[in-house]
Amino acid sequence: MPEERKHRGNRGNNRFPDTDFERIFHPASIAILGVSSDENSVGFGTGMLRVLKEMGFAGRIYPVNPSGGSVLGLKIYSRMEDIPERVDFAVIAVTAKLVPQALEDCLRSGVAGAEILSSGFGELGTQEGRQLEDQIREITARGIRVVGPNCFGIYCPRSGLTMLPGQDLSRESGNVAFLAQSGGMASDFAHAGEWMGIRFSKMVSFGNGADLREAELLNYLARDHETEVISMYIEGIKDGDVFFRELKAAAARKPVIIFKGGLSAAGARSVASHTASMGGSGLIWSSVLKQTGAVQVFDTQELMQASAAFSLLPKKSFRNIAVIGGGGAIGVAACDIAERHGMEIPPLASDIRERIEAILPRPGSSALNPVDVANPLVAPSILKEVLMNAAQDERIDLQIIVSLFFHYNPYALMFGVPIAEIVPYKELVEVVGDVINKTGKPVVAVLPNARRGPRNMDITGLIALARQEYVQRGIPVFDELHEAIRAIAHVNTYYGRRENEKR
Amino acid sequence: MPEERKHRGNRGNNRFPDTDFERIFHPASIAILGVSSDENSVGFGTGMLRVLKEMGFAGRIYPVNPSGGSVLGLKIYSRMEDIPERVDFAVIAVTAKLVPQALEDCLRSGVAGAEILSSGFGELGTQEGRQLEDQIREITARGIRVVGPNCFGIYCPRSGLTMLPGQDLSRESGNVAFLAQSGGMASDFAHAGEWMGIRFSKMVSFGNGADLREAELLNYLARDHETEVISMYIEGIKDGDVFFRELKAAAARKPVIIFKGGLSAAGARSVASHTASMGGSGLIWSSVLKQTGAVQVFDTQELMQASAAFSLLPKKSFRNIAVIGGGGAIGVAACDIAERHGMEIPPLASDIRERIEAILPRPGSSALNPVDVANPLVAPSILKEVLMNAAQDERIDLQIIVSLFFHYNPYALMFGVPIAEIVPYKELVEVVGDVINKTGKPVVAVLPNARRGPRNMDITGLIALARQEYVQRGIPVFDELHEAIRAIAHVNTYYGRRENEKR
Repeated sequence: MPEERKHRGNRGNNRFPDTDFERIFHPASIAILGVSSDENSVGFGTGMLRVLKEMGFAGRIYPVNPSGGSVLGLKIYSRMEDIPERVDFAVIAVTAKLVPQALEDCLRSGVAGAEILSSGFGELGTQEGRQLEDQIREITARGIRVVGPNCFGIYCPRSGLTMLPGQDLSRESGNVAFLAQSGGMASDFAHAGEWMGIRFSKMVSFGNGADLREAELLNYLARDHETEVISMYIEGIKDGDVFFRELKAAAARKPVIIFKGGLSAAGARSVASHTASMGGSGLIWSSVLKQTGAVQVFDTQELMQASAAFSLLPKKSFRNIAVIGGGGAIGVAACDIAERHGMEIPPLASDIRERIEAILPRPGSSALNPVDVANPLVAPSILKEVLMNAAQDERIDLQIIVSLFFHYNPYALMFGVPIAEIVPYKELVEVVGDVINKTGKPVVAVLPNARRGPRNMDITGLIALARQEYVQRGIPVFDELHEAIRAIAHVNTYYGRRENEKR
Repeated sequence: MPEERKHRGNRGNNRFPDTDFERIFHPASIAILGVSSDENSVGFGTGMLRVLKEMGFAGRIYPVNPSGGSVLGLKIYSRMEDIPERVDFAVIAVTAKLVPQALEDCLRSGVAGAEILSSGFGELGTQEGRQLEDQIREITARGIRVVGPNCFGIYCPRSGLTMLPGQDLSRESGNVAFLAQSGGMASDFAHAGEWMGIRFSKMVSFGNGADLREAELLNYLARDHETEVISMYIEGIKDGDVFFRELKAAAARKPVIIFKGGLSAAGARSVASHTASMGGSGLIWSSVLKQTGAVQVFDTQELMQASAAFSLLPKKSFRNIAVIGGGGAIGVAACDIAERHGMEIPPLASDIRERIEAILPRPGSSALNPVDVANPLVAPSILKEVLMNAAQDERIDLQIIVSLFFHYNPYALMFGVPIAEIVPYKELVEVVGDVINKTGKPVVAVLPNARRGPRNMDITGLIALARQEYVQRGIPVFDELHEAIRAIAHVNTYYGRRENEKR
């Protein structure tokens, strides 16, 4: 057995076993245990085979089933030992009772790690379930690493590894890693990442976490060069001391965003039935998380939005912001929200204000900051001048541009043309990209939509297109101003702390 | 001058002048001052004429312009006094300098009230602007009421009165009134109301509020039989004592939801340039609002979502809720969010749990509450049984059903059919409607969407259709569980207080 795969079994010293994560996340070959010869089977094994092929996984795939046969053009091997090469990674999708033997077979064949998609273990709360999970744990101690059981597995776009249900996930690799016990949460985040402009380095849904789980995966991701931001949803942790030590170490290297579920009494009860972990008290968690330097968030949207901000913005804090567009009430709200989040929307320097006021339509506009452009139809070329000028105020760290595209609707109706034809969203995105390049200061876009009914799907569609243009340039987009400011505030909390420590 | 239109001018006693609001909100005839004979004019007067016709306003419309002529099949009157009947309501859209004379003309012709759409008054911060606004105020003291200036006007679906930009607003009347200085906010809310299931009794955007504004309109709406919920966005108030007295009186009769903008220093500065009002300190506002019994919210989404909950739910509090569907992590989050908002998701009675567990697919399901249905594809007929059973637990006040329709997408792709064809959303909505009728306990729907990119517009479209089905039955729908729970919590705060007072 090569040196790098050996387990040192030194958990007592809070060290993790040596593990060849490279073979797990970027396997050259995969065995799938529990594939049916019926290619339309809805079993997890056949499903995983299908989606690995759809993802274009470039390595070798070996379906395994005692019954043999073939599926989707691949030979089904009756036994692991019949596979003609040493396999790096295994997907185990056999019924719970058969999992320990399948895992033994993988261990004996020199597999580095396996994801166990099957459920029917500790999460059932039955003695049989717990015993099966103990057996898994015992086997891993002898030299194979396990993700799961009761999980959706690993998604790694660079290698083409995908999790359940899995098809249709992006193959673009990015800088965000995501960890979750919950497979549903992982899958939803993988999909939301697509339109939010978040690309992932690695995503691990570890379910019951019989072996690999939060602390050790954090330790790995903190050292992983592909990962610049670590985002996680956890319901319960196994070993508090080790977890907080790893969390602190990881947060010292890169931002860690954490959404802790199960903080309430009922939530903890619900956690027990979901992934067989323990919850915990909200106050204790908040205070401990603060000490680690990790960023705590309180719902899925906040988690994803913070991840987008950390992933796409420069690695620094942004205390003073300019807000352009959106109209009076949105500007007023911007100031209130910014103050609530420890940020400022300072009045622009008077010479800059004068230059901006000379460009904007009168009356109704204001260049004070927020800059009220008075009219939702102001041309991108004018908005560019406003953004270029506002960025010249040296206090301004970041700009937010709010576009109410749905206000073009009356004109689309009046002239009888599709709204996407009259909204210059491509030019606007180009202009914003230009401004970022020329000024070196980030711009964040906000695209609210007050018109989301079935008869206004053209507006919803237009906004989705504009968002796509923005995120393809790495410009973060939010639905609402308060979401944008809250996400930026998380970035400020994390980098502000580091900037203070440096002083 | 008929008795009901006389002004008593007793503001000194904190009483409001007698006003015939019926003639203002349900006018039999409208004069529009400042209509161009060019029907494609982008002026506010011509715009308002167009949208009043599109809304199907059933009364008489009299365009007015010294140049005479005709537009859109209507004669343009040169002077107010030429109009052959007493006009109830006037729209004034002439240039600021000409507004006082136009208003004088309306007063002399016996008009009950006018909305002044023109800007160029106090909001400019110039002496000329302030003087023009003082002139308006002086004229109103002699017997005509004014909404504005610098506003989008009045929307009243029952009478067909609409505000700017105005076309395409619902003609269905409902139980929510909305007040705002900001026209943009009013217009956005009017449109969002359509897909959120909120129908309006009256909406008033009063801009600078030279005459009619927050306190007096509250006083009117508190007594208005069409209005059951009052929702408002205000940036500044004119007379704190009077406002808080009216707010308290209104909140004693019906829920008043208030979003106060301009609480921060920068926000107050921004308010000054937006609608010429004064802001105020956040802490003082929160404590004073609490005393009045009004419900304070902190952003537009929260305002609209709370309005939907108050409008569509029974008039009581809902402390104990059941959450059905959505999967493990969502259930865990539900408990945490509920606790944060003073609500409970109690375990269901054991006999009810057993009945539910007998129906649900195994393994992976849990009937503890939240009820994890284990599979996003569970049929409406099964969900109906779950909902019917859970409602039998006498502690349960309200149920939330979470549907992750986007999880059908892999199956739509696999079978090559549009997602709307395989998601049984109509049956589901019918089933939920049935459950509400049979159990007498409300159900709230949550329809998250993790897949909002341009290539998944079919999913976004499906969810919009499902939302429409729900709201057409008066069932509130939210994008996210935390939004649903926060909105219900506002209902609890309001009715819980009243229920406690009764004890």
